[in-house]
Amino acid sequence: MSNLDFFFNPKSVAIIGASDTIRFGFNTTKYLLNSKFKTYPVHLNKKEILGHRAYKNVKDIPDDIELAILIIGSEYVPQAIRDCIEKGVKGIIIESAGFAETGIKKYIELQENVKDIIKDSKIRIIGPNCVGVTDFHNKFSTADIEFKREKAGDISIIAQSGVLGNVFIDWGSAQSIGFSKSITLGNKIDVDEVDILDYLNKDDLTKVITLYLEGTNRGREFIDVLSRMTKPVLILKNGRTETGSRAVISHTSTIAGNDKIYDAVFKQNPMIFRVYDFYEMFNIAHIFASQPLIKGKKIAIITASGSLGILACDELVDKGLSLAKLKEETIQTIKEIIPDYVSIGGTIDLGPSMFLTLSDSLKALFKDENVDALLFIFAVPRWPLEKFNFTFSAHFRLMKKLSEKYNKPVVCVCFGSRWVFEYINNNALKFGIPVVDRIEHAVNAFKMMFEYYVNINSKK
Amino acid sequence: MSNLDFFFNPKSVAIIGASDTIRFGFNTTKYLLNSKFKTYPVHLNKKEILGHRAYKNVKDIPDDIELAILIIGSEYVPQAIRDCIEKGVKGIIIESAGFAETGIKKYIELQENVKDIIKDSKIRIIGPNCVGVTDFHNKFSTADIEFKREKAGDISIIAQSGVLGNVFIDWGSAQSIGFSKSITLGNKIDVDEVDILDYLNKDDLTKVITLYLEGTNRGREFIDVLSRMTKPVLILKNGRTETGSRAVISHTSTIAGNDKIYDAVFKQNPMIFRVYDFYEMFNIAHIFASQPLIKGKKIAIITASGSLGILACDELVDKGLSLAKLKEETIQTIKEIIPDYVSIGGTIDLGPSMFLTLSDSLKALFKDENVDALLFIFAVPRWPLEKFNFTFSAHFRLMKKLSEKYNKPVVCVCFGSRWVFEYINNNALKFGIPVVDRIEHAVNAFKMMFEYYVNINSKK
Repeated sequence: MSNLDFFFNPKSVAIIGASDTIRFGFNTTKYLLNSKFKTYPVHLNKKEILGHRAYKNVKDIPDDIELAILIIGSEYVPQAIRDCIEKGVKGIIIESAGFAETGIKKYIELQENVKDIIKDSKIRIIGPNCVGVTDFHNKFSTADIEFKREKAGDISIIAQSGVLGNVFIDWGSAQSIGFSKSITLGNKIDVDEVDILDYLNKDDLTKVITLYLEGTNRGREFIDVLSRMTKPVLILKNGRTETGSRAVISHTSTIAGNDKIYDAVFKQNPMIFRVYDFYEMFNIAHIFASQPLIKGKKIAIITASGSLGILACDELVDKGLSLAKLKEETIQTIKEIIPDYVSIGGTIDLGPSMFLTLSDSLKALFKDENVDALLFIFAVPRWPLEKFNFTFSAHFRLMKKLSEKYNKPVVCVCFGSRWVFEYINNNALKFGIPVVDRIEHAVNAFKMMFEYYVNINSKK
Repeated sequence: MSNLDFFFNPKSVAIIGASDTIRFGFNTTKYLLNSKFKTYPVHLNKKEILGHRAYKNVKDIPDDIELAILIIGSEYVPQAIRDCIEKGVKGIIIESAGFAETGIKKYIELQENVKDIIKDSKIRIIGPNCVGVTDFHNKFSTADIEFKREKAGDISIIAQSGVLGNVFIDWGSAQSIGFSKSITLGNKIDVDEVDILDYLNKDDLTKVITLYLEGTNRGREFIDVLSRMTKPVLILKNGRTETGSRAVISHTSTIAGNDKIYDAVFKQNPMIFRVYDFYEMFNIAHIFASQPLIKGKKIAIITASGSLGILACDELVDKGLSLAKLKEETIQTIKEIIPDYVSIGGTIDLGPSMFLTLSDSLKALFKDENVDALLFIFAVPRWPLEKFNFTFSAHFRLMKKLSEKYNKPVVCVCFGSRWVFEYINNNALKFGIPVVDRIEHAVNAFKMMFEYYVNINSKK
């Protein structure tokens, strides 16, 4: 397995097809030319690109080149690759589309041609038909990311193609989910999920891996690498149905394969968790990355909405977890501070008294040995929050403190409008408490974390 | 069945326990005293409430009273009800908590006591342990709604208790979902889901009904009323599991009952659709209320994200629908306008060319007889939208026009950050195109609409 560092932290970069007009590739050109990364534009006709001297050919650059980014028409790709090999470039990212994904014979042949060219060289290629990579820590990106809102963190993303990765980075960043590295693989003529899983498994800056997968072309190696993983990998496998599989072929010319086989492979691997929705994937990754592991199945639910508390009970049971049976001492402590009509039989439903009684209830619940994790369900409409300017900072600070003291995870599920969500999220993220918008995601995260906990401990 | 209009459009209102200090009931008091609804405050000690003369007892009010709202300690409720009966009040909303939901003997007895008091009278009661009703058209509300952002529309809500209804009204309003009436039923000592379903079934301003249900105390009548419904009813039934059922009892003292029986009852009724998530419930209701019915199972998917197109294919198949097989003519029309590497084998994946090719593609797809509905999946990150100030108004206007011309529904699923969602939603809502944030909700809506379409036509 080769070290792929040069894709994420190249000593020098050539952009072949560098663009100074607004089209695909312009942002990446502009970003890299103005970045700390030593970047050389290559252009057939232009002598200068955005104030930087441009070279006619990568071979003309008076410097060693580690990484080349190709943003040229697909028909020009083979020659550019030959030039790069001659130059001694280590890695190439082919962003250009117009290969096997079109289903058109001449473009399928073009892709085969590229494969032949690199067969006997040591050069590594990501793509074609992708947007390459982003490193959120050192801020290297070939993917039209500008690092305005993006937050560096522990979650890495392997995506297949296109802008989708960027859409979820945008979404995740807006709720302060921190990312480590993202890689879009495209048609995978060389580097694929197997290589990247291996690479990220050894990457100290990655704690959780998310993989969007349409199919693998290296079944045996894929199974092997999954069994080698030492950190949680969340996989969203697309093309489950026949209709979906056909759509996969025309997307990236990948064979989606038999879903039952994939499912069986995922299930037999202790670090692999299958998800079915992008939001779920990133929410669960966020919880995995930010919270201590759960060490049992008993969840306490604390809320001001009885109805949502009940929904969460159903969800817990569906997922094989259980509602914590509180110790008598805990019940008495909570009863002392709440009005006697407040219900704590099942979930802790504080009702409107929540604003006054949440802190003491949290203390009692975290302390209870019958509680393995806390689910805090927030459901208050906008107007009282706006009117009375309630702040929940103190509560989230307390959650963080208690979570660390007792080494138990806590997740907040926030219901309501975007305004309310952002209000709560802005308070919670200061203390690293994950806020998600679906009970299901929080409960699934607890379930997966518990499986993970059992698995890593049975290995010891 | 009595007419319950006086709950939603009362000629006169008494607020018993009217409040001029900031506590539960204050907002309702303030709102109604300043509204067009003739409102009289009742208070034991105060002569004036917020500038309005207050009466010691409802019987002292020199006017007929149609509706009384009770916001007093539960121990004072029995006497207040006796006074209201004597006064000839038609309806009472008991907002006070502190009854059977506490599980405490004296409060359970109090609730029984109230039932005895009204047994021989014609008075109708909503509650206790609720926030009453809201009418979004005439702007009558006992539920702490201020009509700042709320939009009047066709969807009515029956909820059980508390602020949860308000949370979703807040959420729905923020995405311009329009509501007609909302009713929280609380402990249901008199008026319950059976009465309200009957009432809303005849209500001209309600097109779709959403019902949050913890359980019914009138099984036979509930089954009957469901079979009488002539408009779609989406039901979220809580307390599916044993743990959930126990939580239901301590929430509103309702018996959740055997979920299998509820499920069977829902399934045998052609107007009833079961959902499992609040967001799903309101998103589907929104699609039902705003779109023409779907008349077949064939869905065309148009997107700039191949990956999400594939996810949607899988979802369609899971739900028993199918991906539309386009006519050769349609494929040729689209091929003429898009680059030849764009994929239209399965879903119509326009890729980055979407901005230029969407309009013509829409025209061809709506016209195709093999297409029964359109699913438009939007996934573009924030930065290009912000930078180039793309507007999608023209596209949504066209969707509206084509949807009306061909009488086919269209739904937009928007992925990404809240900023992107609001950007798209603000464009789409001008033309009544529903935007939802989950593929699953759109596909489920198509599925339910098709079942509904088949059901209403088989009846004819």
